[in-house]
Amino acid sequence: MPTTSPDNQARAHIFLGIDPGLANTGWGVIEQRGSAYRCLAYGCISTPAHTDTATRLKTIHDELCCVIEKFHPGELGIETVYFGANSKSAFATGQARGAALVAAAGEGMAVGEYSPLQIKQAVVGTGGATKEQVQYMVRAILTLDHLPRPDHASDALAAALCHGSLRGMQALERAVAGKERRDR
Amino acid sequence: MPTTSPDNQARAHIFLGIDPGLANTGWGVIEQRGSAYRCLAYGCISTPAHTDTATRLKTIHDELCCVIEKFHPGELGIETVYFGANSKSAFATGQARGAALVAAAGEGMAVGEYSPLQIKQAVVGTGGATKEQVQYMVRAILTLDHLPRPDHASDALAAALCHGSLRGMQALERAVAGKERRDR
Repeated sequence: MPTTSPDNQARAHIFLGIDPGLANTGWGVIEQRGSAYRCLAYGCISTPAHTDTATRLKTIHDELCCVIEKFHPGELGIETVYFGANSKSAFATGQARGAALVAAAGEGMAVGEYSPLQIKQAVVGTGGATKEQVQYMVRAILTLDHLPRPDHASDALAAALCHGSLRGMQALERAVAGKERRDR
Repeated sequence: MPTTSPDNQARAHIFLGIDPGLANTGWGVIEQRGSAYRCLAYGCISTPAHTDTATRLKTIHDELCCVIEKFHPGELGIETVYFGANSKSAFATGQARGAALVAAAGEGMAVGEYSPLQIKQAVVGTGGATKEQVQYMVRAILTLDHLPRPDHASDALAAALCHGSLRGMQALERAVAGKERRDR
């Protein structure tokens, strides 16, 4: 009879991560079981610039609906965006993010939004990590035999990992607070 | 037997106009028959700031789907947005516009995008028109007995009128170009 580690006994949670963009929207699906993570799939939805905006957004929305339908993730991790003064780029990314969030909300998924600093902190352990360090750690945590490419897919997996990690910590904080209340 | 004017014989086209915004998304549905316009309905979808973004975007998307399902507009007129340096506002509006365009593209609607200058030019006759002049002309063209409120609904109706007007001119240009080719 095989032995069962606490990690194997733990219930599996499936998380989706999205790195939205009008030209390229990265996505990644991970499974969390206890403290172990596994990559189920990742990819990037690219829409050509010569296509009209509505069609591009519908493609992003519909492709993400297919991913959600296939893997049934219960929750979504997505990066909050800081653009500095580039309002044109903010507007384009905003549109793609709108299409992505409509897809997620349509399936009733809970959404966690994280700053780039939170994602780096959760995945690498320091908010000042480089893009390459994030990619390296995404590969290591998910025990992939190669760096996830393109960058958009790697960033999406990082957002999903951040959600899994911070969500776990929040649950732990709630459990500790509950125990303290009961112990009083 | 009642006489039938050429305008009455003309086929009716139904256009939707949208003024997208995360807090307030204005919409307006108009019918064009020949050179005459009629307002079928207009409104504004407001989503409270304390609600999470995904839910707000889903509300905008779903309410617009209801409007499209009810009136079956074949085409959409929407404003292209200029934000200057305000990337935060551009991002929020971009998200709402993404949700709106996914709703329109989901129903296979053709989309016309117009600059604020084009809309003012089409509705008032001058690109330098004020907001009040646009509202006044929207009311006059659609023979409404009151100014359409709030501003977002009025702006949406103006975008729909602009689409109807520029679309008609484009069709005329195509017809003239076709006749010239045949006459050669």
